Amino acid sequence: VTVTLIDGLVLARSAFHHSANYRSVMILGRAVKVVDPEEKKLRLANFVNGLFPGRWSLLRSMTAQEAKATTVLSLPIDEASAKIRTGGPKDDDEDYTLPIWAGVVPLNIAVGEPQSDVRNFPGIEPPAHAYRLRIG
Amino acid sequence: VTVTLIDGLVLARSAFHHSANYRSVMILGRAVKVVDPEEKKLRLANFVNGLFPGRWSLLRSMTAQEAKATTVLSLPIDEASAKIRTGGPKDDDEDYTLPIWAGVVPLNIAVGEPQSDVRNFPGIEPPAHAYRLRIG
Repeated sequence: VTVTLIDGLVLARSAFHHSANYRSVMILGRAVKVVDPEEKKLRLANFVNGLFPGRWSLLRSMTAQEAKATTVLSLPIDEASAKIRTGGPKDDDEDYTLPIWAGVVPLNIAVGEPQSDVRNFPGIEPPAHAYRLRIG
Repeated sequence: VTVTLIDGLVLARSAFHHSANYRSVMILGRAVKVVDPEEKKLRLANFVNGLFPGRWSLLRSMTAQEAKATTVLSLPIDEASAKIRTGGPKDDDEDYTLPIWAGVVPLNIAVGEPQSDVRNFPGIEPPAHAYRLRIG
């Protein structure tokens, strides 16, 4: 499993030294199917609540058929590696005297205002967890 | 080659119907190494200018050693497929009467203000192309 977040594009004085800032992780291992129904439910609840704290208990309960139709994989984090680039461009020494603009154009994942479904039950407002999502 | 942009998280009335909005493409084919030095240079110039229009001609010229140290792959777009999800949650009919907030939390890649390298030649301001990057 790999996950990468891009933090910016790095503009150098030579094309060769253009780069990107990022945070990347790779988890190594063999995923195992979760078969126990109670454990499966717990993992799914943790997944939903991990993104939106407290949401699981507000939802219509999961049916046996839905549980059956959902595969849950478990991957213990026993071995993982991370690679990160931060900061400005690294140019060749002799290029620092050139009048070429160099720097970073930052990128990040922006979270917008919650958009309510038009078919929501009248008077229902977005819960706090819909405003609190942060990625990266 | 696959590229995916996440446009939002979709919160439904049941855990099962939670989803994500995204635009995803997959290009199928076999990449070929570009060996001709002039073609290689042209492709690299198009790559830089594609992100930052006009930047290639402002840069310190590429050296023969840099060209040699850079592999350029060409992948013709002969066969490609796209998959997209947009819009709100799709819940089970009977769940629309439940007083559970459902909707979308939009996500997008935000481009920040250019950050100038502290070692820039004095008086150099960010070029227009550093402000015009748009992703997605």
